[in-house]
Amino acid sequence: MPPVIFHPFEKEIEPDGHSTLLDLARKAGIPLEAPCGGKQICGKCRVVVERGEGPLPPVSERGQEVLGELIQEGYRLACETVLSCGASVWIPEGGRRGRQTILTSDTRHTYPVTLRPRVNCCYVEVPEPVIDAVAADRERLLAALEKGYGIRSPEMDLFVLRQLPQALRSHDKGVTAVIHDMKEIIDLRPGREDCLYGVAFDVGTTTVVAFLMDLSSGEKRAVVPAMNPQIALGDDVITRISFCQESPDGLERLRTEIVGCMNGLVNQASAQAGIDPGRIMEATVVGNTAMHHLLAGLDPRHLAQAPYPPVLQAGQAIKARDVGLHIGNSAYVRLLPLKAGFVGSDTVAGILATGLHRRKSPGLLIDLGTNGEIVFGNRDRMLCCSTAAGPAFEGGHIRWGMRASAGAIERLQIDPSTFDVRWAAIDEKRPLGLCGSGIISAAAEMIRSGIILSRGNMNDALQTPRLREGEDGWEFVLVWGSDTAAGQDIVFTQKDVAELQVAKAAVYAGAMVLIERYGDVPFRQILLAGACGNYVDPEDACTIGLFPGCLEAKVVGVGNAAGHGACLALLDKNRWREAERIARDAAYVELAADVRFQELFVSSMWFTWAKDFEDDF
Amino acid sequence: MPPVIFHPFEKEIEPDGHSTLLDLARKAGIPLEAPCGGKQICGKCRVVVERGEGPLPPVSERGQEVLGELIQEGYRLACETVLSCGASVWIPEGGRRGRQTILTSDTRHTYPVTLRPRVNCCYVEVPEPVIDAVAADRERLLAALEKGYGIRSPEMDLFVLRQLPQALRSHDKGVTAVIHDMKEIIDLRPGREDCLYGVAFDVGTTTVVAFLMDLSSGEKRAVVPAMNPQIALGDDVITRISFCQESPDGLERLRTEIVGCMNGLVNQASAQAGIDPGRIMEATVVGNTAMHHLLAGLDPRHLAQAPYPPVLQAGQAIKARDVGLHIGNSAYVRLLPLKAGFVGSDTVAGILATGLHRRKSPGLLIDLGTNGEIVFGNRDRMLCCSTAAGPAFEGGHIRWGMRASAGAIERLQIDPSTFDVRWAAIDEKRPLGLCGSGIISAAAEMIRSGIILSRGNMNDALQTPRLREGEDGWEFVLVWGSDTAAGQDIVFTQKDVAELQVAKAAVYAGAMVLIERYGDVPFRQILLAGACGNYVDPEDACTIGLFPGCLEAKVVGVGNAAGHGACLALLDKNRWREAERIARDAAYVELAADVRFQELFVSSMWFTWAKDFEDDF
Repeated sequence: MPPVIFHPFEKEIEPDGHSTLLDLARKAGIPLEAPCGGKQICGKCRVVVERGEGPLPPVSERGQEVLGELIQEGYRLACETVLSCGASVWIPEGGRRGRQTILTSDTRHTYPVTLRPRVNCCYVEVPEPVIDAVAADRERLLAALEKGYGIRSPEMDLFVLRQLPQALRSHDKGVTAVIHDMKEIIDLRPGREDCLYGVAFDVGTTTVVAFLMDLSSGEKRAVVPAMNPQIALGDDVITRISFCQESPDGLERLRTEIVGCMNGLVNQASAQAGIDPGRIMEATVVGNTAMHHLLAGLDPRHLAQAPYPPVLQAGQAIKARDVGLHIGNSAYVRLLPLKAGFVGSDTVAGILATGLHRRKSPGLLIDLGTNGEIVFGNRDRMLCCSTAAGPAFEGGHIRWGMRASAGAIERLQIDPSTFDVRWAAIDEKRPLGLCGSGIISAAAEMIRSGIILSRGNMNDALQTPRLREGEDGWEFVLVWGSDTAAGQDIVFTQKDVAELQVAKAAVYAGAMVLIERYGDVPFRQILLAGACGNYVDPEDACTIGLFPGCLEAKVVGVGNAAGHGACLALLDKNRWREAERIARDAAYVELAADVRFQELFVSSMWFTWAKDFEDDF
Repeated sequence: MPPVIFHPFEKEIEPDGHSTLLDLARKAGIPLEAPCGGKQICGKCRVVVERGEGPLPPVSERGQEVLGELIQEGYRLACETVLSCGASVWIPEGGRRGRQTILTSDTRHTYPVTLRPRVNCCYVEVPEPVIDAVAADRERLLAALEKGYGIRSPEMDLFVLRQLPQALRSHDKGVTAVIHDMKEIIDLRPGREDCLYGVAFDVGTTTVVAFLMDLSSGEKRAVVPAMNPQIALGDDVITRISFCQESPDGLERLRTEIVGCMNGLVNQASAQAGIDPGRIMEATVVGNTAMHHLLAGLDPRHLAQAPYPPVLQAGQAIKARDVGLHIGNSAYVRLLPLKAGFVGSDTVAGILATGLHRRKSPGLLIDLGTNGEIVFGNRDRMLCCSTAAGPAFEGGHIRWGMRASAGAIERLQIDPSTFDVRWAAIDEKRPLGLCGSGIISAAAEMIRSGIILSRGNMNDALQTPRLREGEDGWEFVLVWGSDTAAGQDIVFTQKDVAELQVAKAAVYAGAMVLIERYGDVPFRQILLAGACGNYVDPEDACTIGLFPGCLEAKVVGVGNAAGHGACLALLDKNRWREAERIARDAAYVELAADVRFQELFVSSMWFTWAKDFEDDF
């Protein structure tokens, strides 16, 4: 029987079919609180059960009273819940001892986190100077901080020193020093203040997302997305790197664009939350290595030439003023560590958020995009690689491909007898084209209904007007022009299938290389990260053969794991250190140098779930 | 017999009238080299003997051959020199083991220093990245530095990181990392480089001096002075502080002025030395507390209100780019520590340069100016204060007073029988007025020749046309109009005498308070620092009663001790730490709160060297 996994502790235990989750948790050594003694009264032992294979476990009448609407979100009382099969169980705040909270994702996922921010408020009352033993403002403040908090000789940069005389004298009572890492005063506020903010950025090639977090409560105060304005200077990573090489001020222009965008997000998020951006006292940033370099103003040109060395791998803390980010002037912006030229801090953050590095049993983490980043491993060992999937998963090089915006078909169904097609487009608009998940869905349905055969060729024996010859060879009409926004038929062509074959073979072969190097062990979980991962239907992905392990493992969309990793590293400094360890210890596999990858790539082009697959041999 | 003091070790030993300085040095445990065995051959045991009470000791024929013209500068061979009385003996480079040098002052003083700069060059050859184990540029550089120099994980700020890809690839052989404190890489240079520069600033209210130093040799490459351009916004410290309070952008304007001036000096000095200012890798700064605050952009207003608290006392390191100083972008500017609102880092640096804090026998250090900073003490204990002498020593509030520029009389003599006056003016121009030393000289001569009496009143019984009644009461004509530049008589008035009485009483009483608090011990040395100190004749100073101890102690002008302290802290990081200790351990005495100061101030108004003094009682 698959185990029950308690998150965020990543402890696994076998369910026995009669013990409650409370019993199992205690057996696993997890400090789950139950002051009422397991009588379904206090509600303290509440946990979130992730939908496993079966339905969610039932809730008693008492439980229903205690939990109310939370039941729909998967909340259960551990003291009454008995699982008959494996499941992921999250233990949220209130269920554990200590000051903890849940970082609610914008997807269905929650990322529990312990609040241990790097910045803290220390309120002190600083005595006035006296004539016969004058001490300077700084020295009196430091004495008060040592007396009140045991903090010894923190540093203060020039800009904080400049605030000091005013801060000490503009309030009767005292002053709040904002202390970074217990080592440096990064802000001073007259009077008593407790509330600090932080911002986490996920800087993608296409989109940038800012998460404004309350560092005192762990609460997410605003989530604001934007298009990456660098797109105007280059659609993808490689074009932007070329732009840096070709234009003398290319790097500076790209840097200015992204910093401007991030400042815009800070302002928007601050306005939404009703706070002053100057009160944001820390920022964390994740992104692919090229975005990381462009933001920092580091020349990215070597990322485009084998062996693709990045300028740095370790995490880097930079004063906000040096980056040009308009948050607290002396605050730090922390760029999370990265692994390689094409395995960025977004991947490291994804591992951090999903807890792959803490798990006992290995799992496969895939972030689909132009470069598919793939990680395989567990707490013992972690392998990662990047595979050049090409732009198919983002709609590129596909006749009717498009980005995931209004009017994009994201899912469809083909009736295997009539070949009629039903579709779902974003915002329920008239269809404009197919986004990544729509492309995968279309191919999967065409395979299931026998339109696409094992080698990728279309079954020209089928009798339906939807299958016809077009300019790129055979094509299948998904939506007739009468139903589309543009009035033209939306088709899926033989060439589109070939593009998809290359893309999925690259991902499959990359994953297989990692699994083989690891030792070809069975694994139970496949985590799909990234925007695409959220919308791709696991079954569709398995049908086209996007990754190995479909038979034995469960496929889970983990949402914007990178962004959530950035939030975790912001809220909990131990998580930052974890990210450092992940980046240091994960082994990078360069597929370009790997013969086995070439072999697997070729053999993975087939559609092994196609109807004719077995006949073919 | 007074002791022989060996500098810079500050070791004292009694001369016995027959041992050579080499013997005495060895007895005192000083590692003075003498490879020839004391045969006046190798010249390695050369020392500099400061003129004591008697004449300089004689030199043998062999010694004359070895030393040549250095004899005039006080150089002697320790192996043949026997002193019959106490003296200060400096042991220069070559005379000691280790890598040492002499910091030649622009005055007659030398300041020996051991070269231990904070910044060092580390040349490494960094392997190229390889495809099957790619390490980032930073990580490869760090590995090479650890292997070559044992430096573990130095930091690199954003701006150095930006240089990295280019620096690693623009030279076949390797790269030189400039390392600060063995903890941070602050610059990268392609290929091998050994030569680093530093700049020390003495920022005075009136003048600013920059010393460009070669950190590899300790050599002074350029000394460039400038007027402090803040003068246009306020003549003295108090007017400038008022300007900050009255004008909303006052502080920023003053800050911009002084930084602009310092950048100008950096450019001038670099041009003189033929180097790129970007190769200056460290700066140290001393100045009075107001100049310190204005340069750093710290609000100085509280310096003008009792109890005059400064914003900070400890030394502060600031990135050059944050100050706006155009030296190496990631280099540090270090503001030396200060003691109080009116005892600045210039005084701390003065103690450091003169070695008062290392001496066994106490000494008195005086920096004359609008505020006279006074220090009394030795290695056991140090007391300091600031006394409001008023502007008389800088020519202010004196009818014919002026700054020490061309045409200012700096010294004069009065014939006690004829009352004829001989004078020496700066640049041998026709006299325009009296600078500080000229004012002191005039008063001293007038006392000696009986013109000024003990209470400060002029002796109206004297028969000379030079003594006459003017608009400010009695006045004495120093230079007849026929000899002056302006064609008017230059006089010294009764009111001028009164101004000087207040000024000298303030200094005398301040010094006495320190001496009494220390325990009223005898002391042997009075060190006069600052521009004024260089030109004031010690005898004149004693005649007007400028400070106590004239009978028993020797008065020595120590030149721009503050500037040299800044150079020492630049060349030797141990000296910086010494400065920190000096600032921390010296006890500040607030005269405004001191009743004894008031008493002494009143009684010090008298001229006790005037001819009528004893009659008067």
